[in-house]
Amino acid sequence: MRIRWALEELGLEYDVELFTFKELKEPAYLKYQPFGQIPFYREGDLVLFESGSIILYLAERHAGLLPKDPNAKARAITWMFAALNTVEPPIVDRSLFVILEKEKPWYHERLPMLDERVTQRLKELSARLGNQEWLDGDFSAGDLLMVTVLRRAESSGLLMKYPNIEAYIARAEARPAYKTAFAAQAALASL
Amino acid sequence: MRIRWALEELGLEYDVELFTFKELKEPAYLKYQPFGQIPFYREGDLVLFESGSIILYLAERHAGLLPKDPNAKARAITWMFAALNTVEPPIVDRSLFVILEKEKPWYHERLPMLDERVTQRLKELSARLGNQEWLDGDFSAGDLLMVTVLRRAESSGLLMKYPNIEAYIARAEARPAYKTAFAAQAALASL
Repeated sequence: MRIRWALEELGLEYDVELFTFKELKEPAYLKYQPFGQIPFYREGDLVLFESGSIILYLAERHAGLLPKDPNAKARAITWMFAALNTVEPPIVDRSLFVILEKEKPWYHERLPMLDERVTQRLKELSARLGNQEWLDGDFSAGDLLMVTVLRRAESSGLLMKYPNIEAYIARAEARPAYKTAFAAQAALASL
Repeated sequence: MRIRWALEELGLEYDVELFTFKELKEPAYLKYQPFGQIPFYREGDLVLFESGSIILYLAERHAGLLPKDPNAKARAITWMFAALNTVEPPIVDRSLFVILEKEKPWYHERLPMLDERVTQRLKELSARLGNQEWLDGDFSAGDLLMVTVLRRAESSGLLMKYPNIEAYIARAEARPAYKTAFAAQAALASL
């Protein structure tokens, strides 16, 4: 979804290749993506992986997701890393815990601690976002990644305490490129 | 350490400003780093945070940490993201667990699961690294970040199963820029 959304924002044509979960752990796939994750990106001889890296590559080469001003561009890239390195890890950690440890005796005692780690990041993000439309000037690859990261916390119920973050996500989801990408992903899921 | 090592690899002059842990959570600091983390980077009017973003900014502007060939450069940047997004999160999660939950009744039952998550990444990384000197061609910002991430797993004892990863870390630590940066950090720690 992240890459597809970026490709739609940039107005690029692309093909999608699908793999089964089983295929992700096979040598033929690991040659492209050494950690057996999705997605990877192929353009001629070039193979890239990691959503952040693929989106940065595309955004560097096509207008629409990074400012032209060098300082503003560096700040947008900072938000790409902040989304993936600072905001996403506690969200993923909490999600994994909920999925894998729900039946464990420690579940109810540990969950509030993981909620608190996510909430701490949301609180800091909310304070920085304030009433701005996007994180730093125009919509950028930083916002794109941050919104996809925040959406992973939606089922937690923790976002509700931060109306400015909810409104920020809603603004992103209202973008035509998001809608096109989302519909295409939903069509895939129904295959 | 990450930024300092990068600055030394690039042969750049720099100043270091120190903050107390208490200061990191104060508005005067959050203006520069909205999540109250270290480090941030200031150059004239520009303020950046996130180690990955700062190192990418420096490596884009000074020779030594990214290949000139555009495809090789994109692959090196992929490794920067892989270090921070794929290899580091399970390592940090395990470290936090060991520090914060050692006395909890579930400690001994949960630890092997976290070990396994780290080991899975190490196994995949080891398979990709093989007997190469660095991850993809010459030493790059991707190796620099990967090595700093791997060093965070040293106390776990989990690296020992992967002699090629241990040799990779040792090669990086033998670099003059690493040694200079390490000595400077050690001198700070003794203040």
